[in-house]
Amino acid sequence: MQIAIVLYPGFTALDFIGPYEVLRNLPGADVRFVWHEPGPVAADSGVLLVGATHSFDETPAPDVVLVPGGMSTFEHARDQRVLDWVRRAHESSTWTTSVCSGSVILAAAGLLNGRRATSHWMALPMLRPFGVHPVGDQRIVREGRIVTAAGVSAGIDLGLWLAGQIAGDAKAKAVQLVIEYDPQPPYDSGHMSKASATTKASASALLTRDTVKLGQLTAPVTLLWQTALRKVRAS
Amino acid sequence: MQIAIVLYPGFTALDFIGPYEVLRNLPGADVRFVWHEPGPVAADSGVLLVGATHSFDETPAPDVVLVPGGMSTFEHARDQRVLDWVRRAHESSTWTTSVCSGSVILAAAGLLNGRRATSHWMALPMLRPFGVHPVGDQRIVREGRIVTAAGVSAGIDLGLWLAGQIAGDAKAKAVQLVIEYDPQPPYDSGHMSKASATTKASASALLTRDTVKLGQLTAPVTLLWQTALRKVRAS
Repeated sequence: MQIAIVLYPGFTALDFIGPYEVLRNLPGADVRFVWHEPGPVAADSGVLLVGATHSFDETPAPDVVLVPGGMSTFEHARDQRVLDWVRRAHESSTWTTSVCSGSVILAAAGLLNGRRATSHWMALPMLRPFGVHPVGDQRIVREGRIVTAAGVSAGIDLGLWLAGQIAGDAKAKAVQLVIEYDPQPPYDSGHMSKASATTKASASALLTRDTVKLGQLTAPVTLLWQTALRKVRAS
Repeated sequence: MQIAIVLYPGFTALDFIGPYEVLRNLPGADVRFVWHEPGPVAADSGVLLVGATHSFDETPAPDVVLVPGGMSTFEHARDQRVLDWVRRAHESSTWTTSVCSGSVILAAAGLLNGRRATSHWMALPMLRPFGVHPVGDQRIVREGRIVTAAGVSAGIDLGLWLAGQIAGDAKAKAVQLVIEYDPQPPYDSGHMSKASATTKASASALLTRDTVKLGQLTAPVTLLWQTALRKVRAS
């Protein structure tokens, strides 16, 4: 079972590391990280590099597609080569999925037209122009073979749900114990319906600050590992 | 505030990506990934490469130390250069922390002698030979400046707790909303006290399987990015 996790400069790491950590434990799981070309790809933080192992061209027909989010998602949702790949991969995939603002890329590829989808709370309004009905009160939203998850940490819940669909409840429960997913957040402000006005304002400010750094992330895509590393070390 | 996240071949990615995603959002956070030398380091899955940005020598006095776990932790807990660095870094750190079996490295460095600590449920018995009192029923365990967290996903809870200590509850709550940490696991088998005997047996089998692959992970440490990438692509 080939699982293709899409990387792009500016990704939010937890979006895909959550489901990666779940799905890699399934029998026969063959995870790969895809981008235009193999090489290091920088996260939104600018300090984390994750290796793309394969190009889109090398990955024509994955069984599972997972598109993570990030503040740069909206840029990449205009990249026709990304959208073409997502469309073609979806034709034969068993599951096409997204976490966080990754659903904007599925939407831009035309996969969610007239359908319901979720996203990071800040990205929900960006779905509507693509003819998508945004859902803000569900952790994951299923529409046929397409499953979208809410922001960042929701990828873990998506991963376990997918694991159950792919390998059955027993295996999914075993993986939940492997990753000791027995969450005990010290606060209860993880959803817009639970957070105070102050928390919402502070969270929005944090997300806006991230946007400022986006320009730093365009170079590593086309450079080799060593160069990307030097850039990160110098930042 | 310098936050040093230790990488080593065979790390479990979610262990540190959880707290990374929380702590990087704090004001003045300066996250770095450290290992003997900068370069790509392979996860326990063998397919995920994460860049070490700095060497131990370049990182003599971080404010926060975070040691993740993995099935290879026990090997690295015999690496005197790793243990020496952990000991020295702890002398001046504000917080010295671990996730999952990472606590075995803190224990091997002598930091937990006579103290309480937690770990991944499978690694808890490995703490006792180092004079540590294993705690299996707490998500995070604090002993002065040392905080240990349970397995894998517990790093997110640790990250938020630390964020509250470092930057105050208001900032921590804002970060919780940024990462939309409102967990809704589709199953309830994330702790040994909740999992069935079948789930426990299946989870143990999954973890044992990982051990078999460890030999594949020793090479990338000393090789350059390109070589590591070729290895991952060929596996």
